[in-house]
Amino acid sequence: MPRYELTTDEELSGPQKSALAADITAIHIAVTGAPARLVHVVYHILGPGNAFVGGEPRGGAYLQGSIRSGRGVETTTELLNRLSTAVSHHTGTAVADVVVTLREGPGHLVSEGGHLVPEPGQEVQIG
Amino acid sequence: MPRYELTTDEELSGPQKSALAADITAIHIAVTGAPARLVHVVYHILGPGNAFVGGEPRGGAYLQGSIRSGRGVETTTELLNRLSTAVSHHTGTAVADVVVTLREGPGHLVSEGGHLVPEPGQEVQIG
Amino acid sequence: MPRYELTTDEELSGPQKSALAADITAIHIAVTGAPARLVHVVYHILGPGNAFVGGEPRGGAYLQGSIRSGRGVETTTELLNRLSTAVSHHTGTAVADVVVTLREGPGHLVSEGGHLVPEPGQEVQIG
Repeated sequence: MPRYELTTDEELSGPQKSALAADITAIHIAVTGAPARLVHVVYHILGPGNAFVGGEPRGGAYLQGSIRSGRGVETTTELLNRLSTAVSHHTGTAVADVVVTLREGPGHLVSEGGHLVPEPGQEVQIG
Repeated sequence: MPRYELTTDEELSGPQKSALAADITAIHIAVTGAPARLVHVVYHILGPGNAFVGGEPRGGAYLQGSIRSGRGVETTTELLNRLSTAVSHHTGTAVADVVVTLREGPGHLVSEGGHLVPEPGQEVQIG
Repeated sequence: MPRYELTTDEELSGPQKSALAADITAIHIAVTGAPARLVHVVYHILGPGNAFVGGEPRGGAYLQGSIRSGRGVETTTELLNRLSTAVSHHTGTAVADVVVTLREGPGHLVSEGGHLVPEPGQEVQIG
């Protein structure tokens, strides 16, 4: 945690995936101060024709991030803005068709590598 | 936001997807008063043999909706009931095998088209 | 509800899916006291090359559980520990590469088979 899941209509190339994963990781670190080793990025393909907005077909890119609770709205807004720009840049999707959602939860409901995830600022505890 | 994601064992046809997306959008608008342009519907395929209930194989249809916080239980219950009926009708799945889940979150944790989603009733602010 | 969704890089075999679904179900029942008929387990395939940690490619197994709110941290920690071990055992993934996340929500936001899910301890009401 955090875990960022990007869903696109078509599969991205390997270099696109690597570059966007690096960028999402760098943005999360810069904005929140969390260590890089906690940042997970995964890619899903939706396939064309499977997305509708207002009842009409519309493609796009959707990034869902699960982050730890406890950040202020300035932090989450900066995350949303920078992530939205990065997704648009790396996928070639117009910003108008990019959605980024954050979902907050406590570290004690996440186990990574057999250990609970510490709360923000307590990361030293798991070395 | 809202974002409704339907997962079925087999892929629906194009007309099924369109008709169900229109119905989900109409239900959300009628029950909550939100504008149509905010309603996203997407389709995922699970593939047969990938769902179990009580440890036994069982297919079905699963609709996960992410909606904005702040509606009362009468509103969410009406949403759940009408969405459950619509999913059963359009997919041909028995109601007994339909699951609909709502997850609430604040608009300020969602960016759509480069803008934060307004809270319910504040939609005029983004024109 | 609960609903457990496991995402792996490669598809598990049928017997692996059955055995892990049975184990997840048994663990949830033993730890929470919920009835087996409420426990859903589903499998998703991510495909290799789609997961990154700290910006570097890394495979693994990811289990996301949606459970009802209201359990204490001792209960959720025991769930996380036992589920993490079970996922590692049945998928052959090193515990170091297993992530298990729980997300809590109220039963009244979930419709299963046309009925709202009761809160923990109230299951008798839906027979």
